Amino acid sequence: MKLNCDMGESFGSWSKGMDADVMPYIDMANIACGYHASDPQTMDYTVQLAQQSDVMVGAHPGYPDLLGFGRRDMVLSADELRLMTVYQLAALDGICRVNGTSIQYVKPHGALYNRMMVDEATLGALMQAVAGYSRDCPLVVMATPEADAVRRLADRHGIEVWFEAFSDRAYDDSGRLANRSIPGAVHKTTEAIEAQVLQIIEEGAVTSLGGHRIPICADTICIHGDSEHAVAAARHIRAVVGA
Amino acid sequence: MKLNCDMGESFGSWSKGMDADVMPYIDMANIACGYHASDPQTMDYTVQLAQQSDVMVGAHPGYPDLLGFGRRDMVLSADELRLMTVYQLAALDGICRVNGTSIQYVKPHGALYNRMMVDEATLGALMQAVAGYSRDCPLVVMATPEADAVRRLADRHGIEVWFEAFSDRAYDDSGRLANRSIPGAVHKTTEAIEAQVLQIIEEGAVTSLGGHRIPICADTICIHGDSEHAVAAARHIRAVVGA
Amino acid sequence: MKLNCDMGESFGSWSKGMDADVMPYIDMANIACGYHASDPQTMDYTVQLAQQSDVMVGAHPGYPDLLGFGRRDMVLSADELRLMTVYQLAALDGICRVNGTSIQYVKPHGALYNRMMVDEATLGALMQAVAGYSRDCPLVVMATPEADAVRRLADRHGIEVWFEAFSDRAYDDSGRLANRSIPGAVHKTTEAIEAQVLQIIEEGAVTSLGGHRIPICADTICIHGDSEHAVAAARHIRAVVGA
Amino acid sequence: MKLNCDMGESFGSWSKGMDADVMPYIDMANIACGYHASDPQTMDYTVQLAQQSDVMVGAHPGYPDLLGFGRRDMVLSADELRLMTVYQLAALDGICRVNGTSIQYVKPHGALYNRMMVDEATLGALMQAVAGYSRDCPLVVMATPEADAVRRLADRHGIEVWFEAFSDRAYDDSGRLANRSIPGAVHKTTEAIEAQVLQIIEEGAVTSLGGHRIPICADTICIHGDSEHAVAAARHIRAVVGA
Repeated sequence: MKLNCDMGESFGSWSKGMDADVMPYIDMANIACGYHASDPQTMDYTVQLAQQSDVMVGAHPGYPDLLGFGRRDMVLSADELRLMTVYQLAALDGICRVNGTSIQYVKPHGALYNRMMVDEATLGALMQAVAGYSRDCPLVVMATPEADAVRRLADRHGIEVWFEAFSDRAYDDSGRLANRSIPGAVHKTTEAIEAQVLQIIEEGAVTSLGGHRIPICADTICIHGDSEHAVAAARHIRAVVGA
Repeated sequence: MKLNCDMGESFGSWSKGMDADVMPYIDMANIACGYHASDPQTMDYTVQLAQQSDVMVGAHPGYPDLLGFGRRDMVLSADELRLMTVYQLAALDGICRVNGTSIQYVKPHGALYNRMMVDEATLGALMQAVAGYSRDCPLVVMATPEADAVRRLADRHGIEVWFEAFSDRAYDDSGRLANRSIPGAVHKTTEAIEAQVLQIIEEGAVTSLGGHRIPICADTICIHGDSEHAVAAARHIRAVVGA
Repeated sequence: MKLNCDMGESFGSWSKGMDADVMPYIDMANIACGYHASDPQTMDYTVQLAQQSDVMVGAHPGYPDLLGFGRRDMVLSADELRLMTVYQLAALDGICRVNGTSIQYVKPHGALYNRMMVDEATLGALMQAVAGYSRDCPLVVMATPEADAVRRLADRHGIEVWFEAFSDRAYDDSGRLANRSIPGAVHKTTEAIEAQVLQIIEEGAVTSLGGHRIPICADTICIHGDSEHAVAAARHIRAVVGA
Repeated sequence: MKLNCDMGESFGSWSKGMDADVMPYIDMANIACGYHASDPQTMDYTVQLAQQSDVMVGAHPGYPDLLGFGRRDMVLSADELRLMTVYQLAALDGICRVNGTSIQYVKPHGALYNRMMVDEATLGALMQAVAGYSRDCPLVVMATPEADAVRRLADRHGIEVWFEAFSDRAYDDSGRLANRSIPGAVHKTTEAIEAQVLQIIEEGAVTSLGGHRIPICADTICIHGDSEHAVAAARHIRAVVGA
């Protein structure tokens, strides 16, 4: 079970995340590409950090919205979305190239990720972007009960998908992430996080806020690295998951 | 003698340049990469225009300054400059890739171009960017009497340089472009432009504003495509230069 | 009946609109404030143009989205929307102040305007912004059959509203603008535009695409100035409406 | 002797500075206006923080360069500079207005501040901006041996200037700040900072890195609030200076 974490989310003189601290505990670094966060120097630094810990580099494209950190929904045409994604993948891949490596997967960010999971036109545009740029890069999507439909769409585009589960977010009865405004939507203790991670690994399931067992077949688990608490949790999950 | 022209300088809903009209008359399209102008859709459209006219695509990176169109001088560190250039080359190259092609050369834009010609640290950072990204991409620089020094620096970075002359800009006695504030600095008639182009091709020289003959050894001539007049001049220069 | 027109929509080196040509025919200039278009120099130039033609200056705030020209929907919190609007009103008002005048009304732009007409939280945030900044500035909203509800909300915020009708956009049977994707949604001939303007003025109504008579009580009519055709139509409407 | 500190330098989701912690110890809050840092919500929050501690609000305009945090030199025309400054003053003043207050002075930021102190065209453009917007707002400039020339220029523009000294930056023999690249250019200990503050207050002088006594007549002293150390120093300086 691979651990992935958003990385490279600083911007110019503003820093965000404890990338150097969490990098040793993860397998996949989702690196922002300059649209919702990051800049060429931050990307370069983060790619090198990942290389030092032998961590896979993934592109983490987002909406063109620095002010909103790519977290607010925006309506773009499929063509704009596709090309804006290609632009971001390629830019990070160029920074990888001057460091002797290349991007190995793609995971959309924030509101773009959320929209991809509910809007097939968005998902299709992203798949087309990835397929056009590199069929060797899987697209990371959320593991939901509708995984088969997503996989069929990916097959049509000739790309692979990796499904991800979340370590610290509670699920609702439909197998989606509970809205952050709902009490209990975010697991705050290391114990709760560990329990969910273990259940995903051992049972291929999570227990929803409503108490139901939801089957979740995940290739990777998303963790966070934006606080000392998160880094401690990352270390713990790493130990739970194994090297 | 190849003709090059700045292209893809629209931004979002703002359009600039008569790209479709001038493309048939040029050999090299310098396409902006999103920092001083352009956006992924404009880049995609312009790459396709170039392909339709069998024109080489070059990356045209600039300073991160949309408001100033990359025309005002900015002081960046060598490392920031290098990585910002890699980012732009790679982003355009990605748009090329989804269209089945790739960038074939690099020509810096505006204030970055000007600074490169007077500041060796800037020129070195640009060469390092190109060398790191692709040794198959020559860097286009201005043809000046100091061409040998530039070529030696390029050799050290393991890249090729192409020298360019200007069709519609007058030269001063040092072999540099006359400042635009000087009367006569810009050739306004097709006759004057044609005369300079012919002199560059046939004599390998230009006549400076001061009346001196300046040797200029050029691989390519820069023309413009931002007005109906410019398009007419481009058509004329094409006929003069030959297919 | 006052004619209003969007103005000052250039950005840096990119120009848009035929502001100088259309200014003599209008009463109200809706000047962009730097978020979706414009910049301090464009704002200054446009304010001076308006002064020369004795035209009222209104603030035309939009979403923070230059690339999308404020035309794509974005989801912002009410507080962000309110403060972002205050920022834009005040910035333009400052440019007015150094020219010896001040903003006289507020008309939101593009997707923000559209959202305001269907989402009361957005309308409320805009009214709060205007009320907080200046109760002497009316807010321009679309004249619809729900005008009374809008006026009551404005009363609660202690501001005035001005209702606007559109000269060149067809209405649907609900009294809203027909979607641009529907054939006939935009009046293309000067005759059709004139007919709609006359009907608004003389009958206080428009005829919908479905053939129904829709009562529309308007204080101002929106015209365009972004093409030679639009300028000709503006001149014509000015003559129809009278000085 | 008034203490001033740069404030409101967060941007969107990125936070910077310990504004809430340092606000109780200062007299003047220099609030960024959205060009090099800040956004409407950050400005609103920071204005309210200042009000709670009865601290004066000043506008802190900078170059249009978020990525470079306004710290890199940019070449702008005097007119662009003037209008860009008016835009920023007015925007912050609007946020002040909805909070029942107004800006009380202007202090330029970073590279703009540095250029103002060596380029009279820049200083003149800034003074013209302030004079045009509000003659009640003094412009904060660096206290140097050339103070009389600056004061005469301000007189011609009809505005007041306030001179500032620096608590933690060493001076060179010309009475300018020592370049940060020189060892000892930044005072790192509270003792050294306190000694310089006391010398400014008691003697109207600083001791340069070269050991010379440089007369410095200051109205305000600039302190920092971007680290726990800086906050501790601020508390200490406050005690030294008195309430």
